[in-house]
Amino acid sequence: MPEYTALVASLPSTVPFVGPETQERARGRAFRARIGANESVFGPSLKAIAAMAKAAAECWQYADPVNYDLKHALAAHHGVKPENIMVGEGIDGILGLLVRMLVQQNTPVVTSLGAYPTFNFHVSGFGGKLVTVPYKDDFEDPQALVSAVLDHNAPLAYFANPDNPMASFHPAETIQKLIGDMSRNSLLCLDEAYCEFAPEGSLLPIDVDEERVVRTRTFSKAYGMAGARVGYAIGHRDLIDSFNKVRNHFGVNRIAQAGALAALADQQWLNDVVARVHAANAAIAEIATQNGLVPLPSATNFVTIDCGSDGEFAKRVVAELVARDVFVRMPFVEPGNRCIRISAGQPADIELVKEMLPQALKSARNA
Amino acid sequence: MPEYTALVASLPSTVPFVGPETQERARGRAFRARIGANESVFGPSLKAIAAMAKAAAECWQYADPVNYDLKHALAAHHGVKPENIMVGEGIDGILGLLVRMLVQQNTPVVTSLGAYPTFNFHVSGFGGKLVTVPYKDDFEDPQALVSAVLDHNAPLAYFANPDNPMASFHPAETIQKLIGDMSRNSLLCLDEAYCEFAPEGSLLPIDVDEERVVRTRTFSKAYGMAGARVGYAIGHRDLIDSFNKVRNHFGVNRIAQAGALAALADQQWLNDVVARVHAANAAIAEIATQNGLVPLPSATNFVTIDCGSDGEFAKRVVAELVARDVFVRMPFVEPGNRCIRISAGQPADIELVKEMLPQALKSARNA
Repeated sequence: MPEYTALVASLPSTVPFVGPETQERARGRAFRARIGANESVFGPSLKAIAAMAKAAAECWQYADPVNYDLKHALAAHHGVKPENIMVGEGIDGILGLLVRMLVQQNTPVVTSLGAYPTFNFHVSGFGGKLVTVPYKDDFEDPQALVSAVLDHNAPLAYFANPDNPMASFHPAETIQKLIGDMSRNSLLCLDEAYCEFAPEGSLLPIDVDEERVVRTRTFSKAYGMAGARVGYAIGHRDLIDSFNKVRNHFGVNRIAQAGALAALADQQWLNDVVARVHAANAAIAEIATQNGLVPLPSATNFVTIDCGSDGEFAKRVVAELVARDVFVRMPFVEPGNRCIRISAGQPADIELVKEMLPQALKSARNA
Repeated sequence: MPEYTALVASLPSTVPFVGPETQERARGRAFRARIGANESVFGPSLKAIAAMAKAAAECWQYADPVNYDLKHALAAHHGVKPENIMVGEGIDGILGLLVRMLVQQNTPVVTSLGAYPTFNFHVSGFGGKLVTVPYKDDFEDPQALVSAVLDHNAPLAYFANPDNPMASFHPAETIQKLIGDMSRNSLLCLDEAYCEFAPEGSLLPIDVDEERVVRTRTFSKAYGMAGARVGYAIGHRDLIDSFNKVRNHFGVNRIAQAGALAALADQQWLNDVVARVHAANAAIAEIATQNGLVPLPSATNFVTIDCGSDGEFAKRVVAELVARDVFVRMPFVEPGNRCIRISAGQPADIELVKEMLPQALKSARNA
């Protein structure tokens, strides 16, 4: 057999998330509500769909490897320069490259226990050692994070704001202090995948002169293009340029780039989606309350619901909902795993939750 | 600044290929013929375009991370099992993962001098040391390759058949011997990006029990979907499963997967494209001959043309064609760089070559 590197030989063969399609094949039946992966059921802008449909016929051409048009549009949108933006294959792709740039065998990397598993997958994949700090009252804990960075002299830390899977959010001042407290030679990956759902005016302004932070954004959530795989990093020009050392230059799908460009130009659609998400979240929270559960406040496109017991119980609730054709997921790690997570749905999705949640809870309690 | 790994700090910031879009922006003018990157000007199957246009509206959903439908269709197409197929973000993406699995600091890796630069980019990117063997009469040299693998105890070697940039081709028996001569613990990456253009019946049959070879295929060339980024590896199930350790599981665009599935089902379109490519190649070869140049035999969707002088001259010919709105490229390394490379074009593209090549040659000779 081939001589794998010692690192790769030591890694497990894994899929970080089981896709709903795999569950559907196992069940032999499609889900009626797909509200488990924080996708945007409201879809992409109609203008983005039209742009992608048009670009499909042109996909015999490789995409522009420097992502010129999209990069320039994003720079204008954020009031930064094109050299402060790197477009990649979703935030997942960006995270993989970022980890590769900073992490090797035994490099300590700090994150919150129960935060984004795909980041952890990349860290382990490059031989890094995860240092985790617990959530505090269902919020990521900036002070604990910084302490761990300093204690371990970690070159990289991950912090999502708003947070997945707890849906919680820290205001700009907290994030500003977090960055200011980082050591000069450490980098904070501030994952803002859900930033469009945060309270208006609450995000930390972008400062591309700050070398200690790189911010990741995506077209997968509010822009409704998860399957298109377009994310981007915003940061200091030196950091951004370093992606060119390791990235797959032709990696971002041409159709997706055309779609993202059109989606970015349609801020009206984005605003509508955000409003619909807020309404959907409120409806989901109300259903939770009606069933005696506690919805946590959400700054995202999903509601994390405290089921009032332990991880085993929440797991049964998820299983019972899945058995009733409602695709949902839950946080993986204690104490978050006492919760289930329901993504903002269409009215029909929410009706189904309203119908099925009482049954699911009853079955879970009787199990 | 962040603490990059020593390896990444040592790498250049680079783009392996300058895209035609970058040239167009510099020129302030679009190309009239885009026949420089071996894209398929004949486009994808109309059924693939329709499938992608339809999938665009569904791209709010993440793609199936196990690529079930496409993987199963490819397995059926090739008469292998789904566990012998790994779908990835183009062959470029597959190559990056493969290199990562086998290459670390100072690992020797064998390829031909002047072969695919993106493979070399990945090898350098993971700290490997390239060992190159020269082409022999414009063919990759299997014997020299095997000798280098054995001499250096290299765990990985790259061999493209048909070859880019020289368009040459080795028959099945030669490839069989090449694999048989590899050491038991070395892996040959047999890049078959252009295999659909090879003489019919001339490809080595697939044997997934052979652990010493992994074959890479793509929808970028004959299937006309370069911008969609879908490639795949065919190989032993253990090797294929190892990709799960390091791949970006949600990385293959959902629209692209739908397109590839439809493209694969439309073999009539593929056959038509191959016939049109053969006709286009013949026309390009004839134009070359009429201009006193020597077209090399092609088993690909491009013609490599010996301009009868040195690399400087060929470079001038390319520049003169580019100045006349014909996007073409050339091999980078001696002695291949005495040639220019023209991709199979539509009739209008070929007419433009016919018109511009004499002028370009004249200017290049007078420079």
